[in-house]
Amino acid sequence: MKKLIRGLREFKASYFSTHQQLFEQLSHGQKPRVLFITCSDSRIDPNLMTQAQLGELFVIRNAGNIIPPFGATNGGEGATIEYAIQALDIQQIIVCGHSHCGAMKGLMKLDSLRSEMPLVHDWLKYAEATRRLVLDHYSHYEGEELLEIIIAENVLTQIENLRTYPVIRSKLYRGQLSIYAWIYQIETGEILAYDANDHGYVLPQSQLPPSEIDNTLFDPPAIRNRETPAIKTQQQEFQQPEEFTISASQRFPMTLLSPEQMDRIYRGSASKKSNGS
Amino acid sequence: MKKLIRGLREFKASYFSTHQQLFEQLSHGQKPRVLFITCSDSRIDPNLMTQAQLGELFVIRNAGNIIPPFGATNGGEGATIEYAIQALDIQQIIVCGHSHCGAMKGLMKLDSLRSEMPLVHDWLKYAEATRRLVLDHYSHYEGEELLEIIIAENVLTQIENLRTYPVIRSKLYRGQLSIYAWIYQIETGEILAYDANDHGYVLPQSQLPPSEIDNTLFDPPAIRNRETPAIKTQQQEFQQPEEFTISASQRFPMTLLSPEQMDRIYRGSASKKSNGS
Amino acid sequence: MKKLIRGLREFKASYFSTHQQLFEQLSHGQKPRVLFITCSDSRIDPNLMTQAQLGELFVIRNAGNIIPPFGATNGGEGATIEYAIQALDIQQIIVCGHSHCGAMKGLMKLDSLRSEMPLVHDWLKYAEATRRLVLDHYSHYEGEELLEIIIAENVLTQIENLRTYPVIRSKLYRGQLSIYAWIYQIETGEILAYDANDHGYVLPQSQLPPSEIDNTLFDPPAIRNRETPAIKTQQQEFQQPEEFTISASQRFPMTLLSPEQMDRIYRGSASKKSNGS
Amino acid sequence: MKKLIRGLREFKASYFSTHQQLFEQLSHGQKPRVLFITCSDSRIDPNLMTQAQLGELFVIRNAGNIIPPFGATNGGEGATIEYAIQALDIQQIIVCGHSHCGAMKGLMKLDSLRSEMPLVHDWLKYAEATRRLVLDHYSHYEGEELLEIIIAENVLTQIENLRTYPVIRSKLYRGQLSIYAWIYQIETGEILAYDANDHGYVLPQSQLPPSEIDNTLFDPPAIRNRETPAIKTQQQEFQQPEEFTISASQRFPMTLLSPEQMDRIYRGSASKKSNGS
Repeated sequence: MKKLIRGLREFKASYFSTHQQLFEQLSHGQKPRVLFITCSDSRIDPNLMTQAQLGELFVIRNAGNIIPPFGATNGGEGATIEYAIQALDIQQIIVCGHSHCGAMKGLMKLDSLRSEMPLVHDWLKYAEATRRLVLDHYSHYEGEELLEIIIAENVLTQIENLRTYPVIRSKLYRGQLSIYAWIYQIETGEILAYDANDHGYVLPQSQLPPSEIDNTLFDPPAIRNRETPAIKTQQQEFQQPEEFTISASQRFPMTLLSPEQMDRIYRGSASKKSNGS
Repeated sequence: MKKLIRGLREFKASYFSTHQQLFEQLSHGQKPRVLFITCSDSRIDPNLMTQAQLGELFVIRNAGNIIPPFGATNGGEGATIEYAIQALDIQQIIVCGHSHCGAMKGLMKLDSLRSEMPLVHDWLKYAEATRRLVLDHYSHYEGEELLEIIIAENVLTQIENLRTYPVIRSKLYRGQLSIYAWIYQIETGEILAYDANDHGYVLPQSQLPPSEIDNTLFDPPAIRNRETPAIKTQQQEFQQPEEFTISASQRFPMTLLSPEQMDRIYRGSASKKSNGS
Repeated sequence: MKKLIRGLREFKASYFSTHQQLFEQLSHGQKPRVLFITCSDSRIDPNLMTQAQLGELFVIRNAGNIIPPFGATNGGEGATIEYAIQALDIQQIIVCGHSHCGAMKGLMKLDSLRSEMPLVHDWLKYAEATRRLVLDHYSHYEGEELLEIIIAENVLTQIENLRTYPVIRSKLYRGQLSIYAWIYQIETGEILAYDANDHGYVLPQSQLPPSEIDNTLFDPPAIRNRETPAIKTQQQEFQQPEEFTISASQRFPMTLLSPEQMDRIYRGSASKKSNGS
Repeated sequence: MKKLIRGLREFKASYFSTHQQLFEQLSHGQKPRVLFITCSDSRIDPNLMTQAQLGELFVIRNAGNIIPPFGATNGGEGATIEYAIQALDIQQIIVCGHSHCGAMKGLMKLDSLRSEMPLVHDWLKYAEATRRLVLDHYSHYEGEELLEIIIAENVLTQIENLRTYPVIRSKLYRGQLSIYAWIYQIETGEILAYDANDHGYVLPQSQLPPSEIDNTLFDPPAIRNRETPAIKTQQQEFQQPEEFTISASQRFPMTLLSPEQMDRIYRGSASKKSNGS
């Protein structure tokens, strides 16, 4: 507590005093451009990792960045989504999972949770589509690798759930909404973004309009050569090459590509154009 | 999007590269000390305002920082609370409301939401105790002032709801859990903390163990005189005196003091002692 | 049936005929002063044990004297509480558990109920905070003793739940409502009332305003010496000393004292003063 | 409070001390023969009006003696019924409404309750069948008379709901359960029982096996002649003759008799035989 309270004073004395105009203006209302849905995990700070300013990200956080399908629950997720889209007219949604997610680990040993953490057990029901998909198609993976796949697939599952909300469906229909699937890699401080063209998770440069995409980006070695030395060093220090990216070819071969995923290829670009982001 | 992606690179090049050891260590697990429950509002950044490091705050965010009572919903709030207390053994919870809260404004015109934002309308049912209390006892307030009271009372309502969760009740029973009520004032960058001794919201210094509490702190004018110049200055620049604190005498005259508020006097200090925070 | 019908005639011929004025008056409306919430158990008769007249107790009875938190169920408990507080303006609530409670025994073997009595199993979810607290802190108790603790803690759990209702929260806020925790001991015909000063259940004299409280009452042996002969005799005839009261020192040693229990110290007396009961 | 506490002592000194053996025995378990479902109204005391001893009546009380159909709610009613029939093997159920019922008055002005008492409003949904039946067939009645009909019909509606519970249906199937519809008339201290042979509410003597029924009972004047003077007087003082009974011919002409009601004629006697009551 002491530490936090000292932090509050520090914030006021430093950040606040150097951004008085911003706070002045924010006190009159918020106009966030992005709904950022992520896990409650303490290792995630959406504003820090995106360097977004106060007022830019409207944030939903719960265990496992799970969004129950419309009508399935009466918790805060649906209401908060409705408020973001309807009242704030937000046009971009990022669902951001992360490596080493405790909730996704729970999905791997669901039964053991029933008595120990009944509410968590029931909550993971809304990630059951992830569990089933992985059981059916990735049973040959184990441990860390399996967890990575679960994390990656769950973000896509939750986007499917997100699409069941009336306000979302209506905006998507008009191409007035873009939905992005991200994974935050704690060990590299890197975001991997789902890219429909590549049917896998890649560096989020792929989220930019074609004009700005550097095609060599999708060749991992190439990236390393092009990165600033500082980062390059780190990858050598802290990473196994094969963990660098959940590469499409390893994880989501064409043949496994779901209709929804194909769908997202199209919608992705379509809606990107439509709101010029 | 471009801006966020540039932000990601910036984060990696700056913050990440200067905190590699922290990320290295975080990749092995999280040990947050605080469960921070706050609103999805884009003007709030829990880590920034408390200057907490990655790994320190486990965060739940939804519209209105609402916690439905145990068993009332099957959304993410209960599961995330259970995970925080049971799996992570967190012993401090902060429920943090904020000025200009859109959800609390919604509580003031509930009927108009029924058709326009049905999910938000239904979600606000879990703030009904706030609405009812304010209708019954503060009907003579209006506009901004009324909103301030709703925001302040709602944090206390949500703490009542929080106490119905089995994991919470069991930890409170042993004095192994402290629950704090905070309000973030966007215009001043200030946190006001509920202080039972003062029966109102004051600067959070009151949350520190008695040894560190300066009793004159509870007299607003006195505070201003005793603050470090930096802070004092700002208050003079940016605040109307009566906005400095939702003062007990203005908001909760002794005679209106609720049992719950008195409750917290004792619980606050009792539990603080017990877990030495 | 015959017996009951004979009883009806007897009642009409005796009690009714000697209280015609009371019934005349009651036919014009009820003005109960107490909401009495207790178990459906056939061994309990609230009016008999309190010697209350017709018209004095508004009664809710269900298996286990359970009150689900606000919003958790759509059964009769919430509606009846709302009617009692709102329509009848009742200012005192007694939640009364009892020894040998079948529902609380069910809480000790919850799994076995799932298939056998599914509705009872699900209903006991609203006593889960009791089960959890006892599992966490009283696992070293067994059988009768454990059951006594469960019964005692469950009354306090249900009071936590009760406090989440809007009408309750609003009345508590003004100190216009007092809530009492009672346990009826079938074998002794005695009520034990939760007393926060003693952090345990004692004779309900402790519920009277300070002026009338005999402090030595909280020392069981002392009580026995000071009781009127009639009662004293009986206790000697029918009771083991350690059964005389669920003594604080045995059941809730200071060090185990929960914040909620401390809470009630203050609330108890505060609200008693405020409504002069 | 003082009064109740004095009552507790009185009870212990008088009733308890003269019934020690009964309490001794009750402390070893309960074997109630009747499940008595009635309103929370303070003017009702099931044990007093039936002169039943402790241990004889297992009691459910809520606003309006309402039993939601199986699956419609997750409140205490279903669980308590299940416990009574399954765990206690009770074979007789009495659903007892009463004159001047506040909940039934609420049913007459349902809309006005929506904002004022939302939980009561929603609860009365389970008496909607009563409201509809009365709207459709008794629209020409008003005030007190209409209320009497609502009260009388509601008891039958709730019995229909009761029959939807699995445990009830199974016992009824075997003729191992009898269900009785009673109305308690506060002004006369009289119970009126639904009698299928007469298709109306009459004195409960009709509930006894044919052998014991005095046929003249169904002629009100005759009854008055046979009553003890005391009571006779009162009826003259406090009652209009035509209010003495909600006579079948006035209220439930043959043509309105529902299949369920016919059903009950047969089942009634069948099950009466089967359990020898």
